[in-house]
Amino acid sequence: MPLTEEQEAEVAAARAHAAPTLRPTVATLEAMLARAIPVLDHGFLRVVDYMGDDGAVVQAARVSYGRGTKAANEDRGLIRYLMRHRHSTPFEMCEIKYHVKLPIFVARQWIRHRTANVNEYSARYSVMDREFYIPSPDHLAAQSATNRQGRGAVLEGAEATEVLRLLREDAARNYDHYAWMLNEGADGQVADEGRSGLARELARMNLTLNTYTQWYWKTDLHNLFHFLSLRADSHAQYEIRAYADAMLDTVRAWVPLCFEAFQDYRVGAVTLSSQMLAVVKRMLAGEAVDQPGSGLSKREWRELMETIGRDA
Amino acid sequence: MPLTEEQEAEVAAARAHAAPTLRPTVATLEAMLARAIPVLDHGFLRVVDYMGDDGAVVQAARVSYGRGTKAANEDRGLIRYLMRHRHSTPFEMCEIKYHVKLPIFVARQWIRHRTANVNEYSARYSVMDREFYIPSPDHLAAQSATNRQGRGAVLEGAEATEVLRLLREDAARNYDHYAWMLNEGADGQVADEGRSGLARELARMNLTLNTYTQWYWKTDLHNLFHFLSLRADSHAQYEIRAYADAMLDTVRAWVPLCFEAFQDYRVGAVTLSSQMLAVVKRMLAGEAVDQPGSGLSKREWRELMETIGRDA
Amino acid sequence: MPLTEEQEAEVAAARAHAAPTLRPTVATLEAMLARAIPVLDHGFLRVVDYMGDDGAVVQAARVSYGRGTKAANEDRGLIRYLMRHRHSTPFEMCEIKYHVKLPIFVARQWIRHRTANVNEYSARYSVMDREFYIPSPDHLAAQSATNRQGRGAVLEGAEATEVLRLLREDAARNYDHYAWMLNEGADGQVADEGRSGLARELARMNLTLNTYTQWYWKTDLHNLFHFLSLRADSHAQYEIRAYADAMLDTVRAWVPLCFEAFQDYRVGAVTLSSQMLAVVKRMLAGEAVDQPGSGLSKREWRELMETIGRDA
Amino acid sequence: MPLTEEQEAEVAAARAHAAPTLRPTVATLEAMLARAIPVLDHGFLRVVDYMGDDGAVVQAARVSYGRGTKAANEDRGLIRYLMRHRHSTPFEMCEIKYHVKLPIFVARQWIRHRTANVNEYSARYSVMDREFYIPSPDHLAAQSATNRQGRGAVLEGAEATEVLRLLREDAARNYDHYAWMLNEGADGQVADEGRSGLARELARMNLTLNTYTQWYWKTDLHNLFHFLSLRADSHAQYEIRAYADAMLDTVRAWVPLCFEAFQDYRVGAVTLSSQMLAVVKRMLAGEAVDQPGSGLSKREWRELMETIGRDA
Repeated sequence: MPLTEEQEAEVAAARAHAAPTLRPTVATLEAMLARAIPVLDHGFLRVVDYMGDDGAVVQAARVSYGRGTKAANEDRGLIRYLMRHRHSTPFEMCEIKYHVKLPIFVARQWIRHRTANVNEYSARYSVMDREFYIPSPDHLAAQSATNRQGRGAVLEGAEATEVLRLLREDAARNYDHYAWMLNEGADGQVADEGRSGLARELARMNLTLNTYTQWYWKTDLHNLFHFLSLRADSHAQYEIRAYADAMLDTVRAWVPLCFEAFQDYRVGAVTLSSQMLAVVKRMLAGEAVDQPGSGLSKREWRELMETIGRDA
Repeated sequence: MPLTEEQEAEVAAARAHAAPTLRPTVATLEAMLARAIPVLDHGFLRVVDYMGDDGAVVQAARVSYGRGTKAANEDRGLIRYLMRHRHSTPFEMCEIKYHVKLPIFVARQWIRHRTANVNEYSARYSVMDREFYIPSPDHLAAQSATNRQGRGAVLEGAEATEVLRLLREDAARNYDHYAWMLNEGADGQVADEGRSGLARELARMNLTLNTYTQWYWKTDLHNLFHFLSLRADSHAQYEIRAYADAMLDTVRAWVPLCFEAFQDYRVGAVTLSSQMLAVVKRMLAGEAVDQPGSGLSKREWRELMETIGRDA
Repeated sequence: MPLTEEQEAEVAAARAHAAPTLRPTVATLEAMLARAIPVLDHGFLRVVDYMGDDGAVVQAARVSYGRGTKAANEDRGLIRYLMRHRHSTPFEMCEIKYHVKLPIFVARQWIRHRTANVNEYSARYSVMDREFYIPSPDHLAAQSATNRQGRGAVLEGAEATEVLRLLREDAARNYDHYAWMLNEGADGQVADEGRSGLARELARMNLTLNTYTQWYWKTDLHNLFHFLSLRADSHAQYEIRAYADAMLDTVRAWVPLCFEAFQDYRVGAVTLSSQMLAVVKRMLAGEAVDQPGSGLSKREWRELMETIGRDA
Repeated sequence: MPLTEEQEAEVAAARAHAAPTLRPTVATLEAMLARAIPVLDHGFLRVVDYMGDDGAVVQAARVSYGRGTKAANEDRGLIRYLMRHRHSTPFEMCEIKYHVKLPIFVARQWIRHRTANVNEYSARYSVMDREFYIPSPDHLAAQSATNRQGRGAVLEGAEATEVLRLLREDAARNYDHYAWMLNEGADGQVADEGRSGLARELARMNLTLNTYTQWYWKTDLHNLFHFLSLRADSHAQYEIRAYADAMLDTVRAWVPLCFEAFQDYRVGAVTLSSQMLAVVKRMLAGEAVDQPGSGLSKREWRELMETIGRDA
């Protein structure tokens, strides 16, 4: 259960009072607002605030590209046109803010997306919580033999047991030493009057990279789609993908037309290089093409065959 | 009167239906929402949407800097502390979206602020309106004799009359030729069947820089304050300052505590160089300091005397 | 001839003195350095400075993705891999700075690319030059009947003559009135002692959008490729494409391996939506697919047929 | 000694061959180029490449603000004017690229500066080195009693000994377990054929935050000054300040006029709020002002007295 009692009280408070607004509102997202979606073993993601809806994208596009008629079914067509032709600025007119609790090594990947606003819990000012990410046994994967950044089969037996024991013990021991070095009790008072206690900004260096941190993270819909196209992808590390998947659920609830266009033109889309396109054209003309005759490298040939659903 | 009938209908429609939301709302800003604030002779500025309030800044800061107590008067103190020490990220947690109608030469200054989202009316797709900015007589200023980017006294008499006549006639004639080249009637139909009509993307080049354009412009509160510190300043050109002043009214209504801190620590604040500070310290110690003995250039000396309210 | 005598002297001065450096240098780009490439009737583009080369992209990628062997032909493979999989950060390690002279309406499109550094000639401080873009007759195109942002056939006969006359006369007249309002002689002295002269920041509003301005513009290679993929594209307005084409020549000289990968995986590449991919798979399996049975809209069907070189 | 033999060879190779260039070069920075400046116990910082010099700032400013005369001493005045009045864009015309080896907890602070390009060593692809930051005894500070983010006195005696022992042992043990989980020998071969080995992207989570990482980091001079104004400041954590101080040395060698202006108008400058300025004016007029009569909070009064060198 990822939320503390205090956090549950915060969620309840945030959901207790509705106020009237003239701004665009989205009932399906309001239903999720403030509520924590559990991610991994101790993490969560929750929508704190949002600006705009599908209509806000259309509104901005109509300023740029002129008015025309406004029938509801044309909104969908316009949004799909914008997504297909990478007219990205209208999607920037929507904004969303999340509160996320996540392991530090995931935060280190996430922060590489620069076009966003962030306020992270500071271990210079505050004491970190005693919570660490420990993979569930079915996500304890071996290094892939073929892909330098990928995972292979799941570890089993004694090796799996030992790995989990090491991860748990090392994180716990390092945290306990961190707490000892701080010399602060749970109440913020000095634990041992005979010691000075190490500065928080130094003691934190003893923590492991699976320690949980948290932050507020705010971005616009265009940049969110860019984030999701990379992080909800099968090449992304499972642990960040778990957050991206939770975000996809919120985006579907928030801007269903944009979400559908994103699925069709980005997630499910493929890009063919000029050489790959030439091969496909030859095949469509009935020619039997093989890798040596394709002009593609072996690697690109494999990628193309996978894309068009043929054996390499 | 800056709004067309159609635009008035849009404002009325936007204000007709309130919906309940669990998000932070600000009643004083809701009262202004969608309504056009007239700026210059044909321009306007209106708030289309917003995210967050004073409390959202505090919320983000407490994540970064720890919790502590939460009495209402401490929110003000925390916000002032953040502004004074340039802890800018919590202010990025608020976002605002404007619809602005403005002359092109103002838009060219404005767009230099890069950390914002923009959708501008496109003269490639659409026909521009026949509206130009003509300064009112009291803003028809001469070039400053001392400041290369400043204004001097107001023009008077025959020269003023002639300047206004030229601005009016040149803008109108160029627009009429633009319309002729387009060969489109007001209804979008071909005006003269015997001509092809020049492409919109080419015809627009005949327009003058005081032609009005419009855009949606969205930014976060930190970057808005940066914009306002430059553009609501006495060194800014009057025409963009008129928009910045209208924005200040919306910010005061939206985030009153942030606005007050901005006034005290940015707008009304002064920065002293290390040399200027040394002079002030000597003066406070009772020493009579003059420019030659100050180590400051004449220009810096003048700036310092102005800052501390003494004759140079 | 786009360069003034003074500018020619600047180019000669910039090219007069070579100094030794330990930084990566690119001889083919050094040969172009500082020299103006003419664009449009009075514009130009010239490379003022650059940082990095193909090797700098490889160097950064090897830090991120590990070392491995370093044979020369592997650099090419690595760069192509990075481009194909949109690993964009290594391309950000190269930087280039241009000096560009361009019409204001082109500058207005260009500036929408926000991730760049810009210093533009300021009409608040300085008097603009008397130079305007007038399209050559073969670029004087009609509005496209089918594409709201496109061009159709070239104007001919009396209409073409009249359009060119209007563009020339309006720009010239407006400039002359601008100069009269400024009341400055060519030497910067007051022209007519009996008048005050309008402030520069106001007088400029009388200029037309085809007046030439100039700026220094600096960006990294990743963002330059993004700019070029949009602006060297057939959908871009001819006038900005002319600049993009000149930039392509400089990029080819600067980073030939990156340029080749950009051509193959971006310029010549196509993106198929999930629905389009499904159609291609069915066709490759020998099925005869038509638009009604494809699940694609008529517009998308047309786009797909064009992509794979079939009649719609 | 921070460099490996392999890295020393890279530096030597980088410095072995000078090539002629027409670009601006800075001899004092060329003398430092590629060479590692040691920082902390195992870290370093080295300049990999640079673009521009003091003259490039002046060149860009003259485009924006007009030409005027160009005597050498006026370059200094212009640069100081730009810095004093926060005309930041000309400083963006210079760019610098560093290679940095730094502890992960320092990297986490550093990466918050978003306007920069980064390629970091990836622990998904590669095995991390066995190096950790352990503070020297004179930087092993207690938590400040008065400042929640500050350091107090240096730890001494048994507590210091024990803290250092814990930091060393925990980092080493966690690394050894990381290596065991990876099941890779130093040669990249499988260590124990009987085990699968945990994926690199998972095993890394067992590392401590003082483990060293490395990256290429590239930014423009304006954003570098912003970074340095925050990170070379006395409020910054010592460990990141050590890197900022090393960078200051490189900036002094690179752009001496910009560096001097930065020292005078940013590092040594103070900002007075409107209320603080009012107090200073009253004092200069001979009035005796105390905190209760100042209108300042106790905290702001203390800050002001410190600024003007008086006892609070």
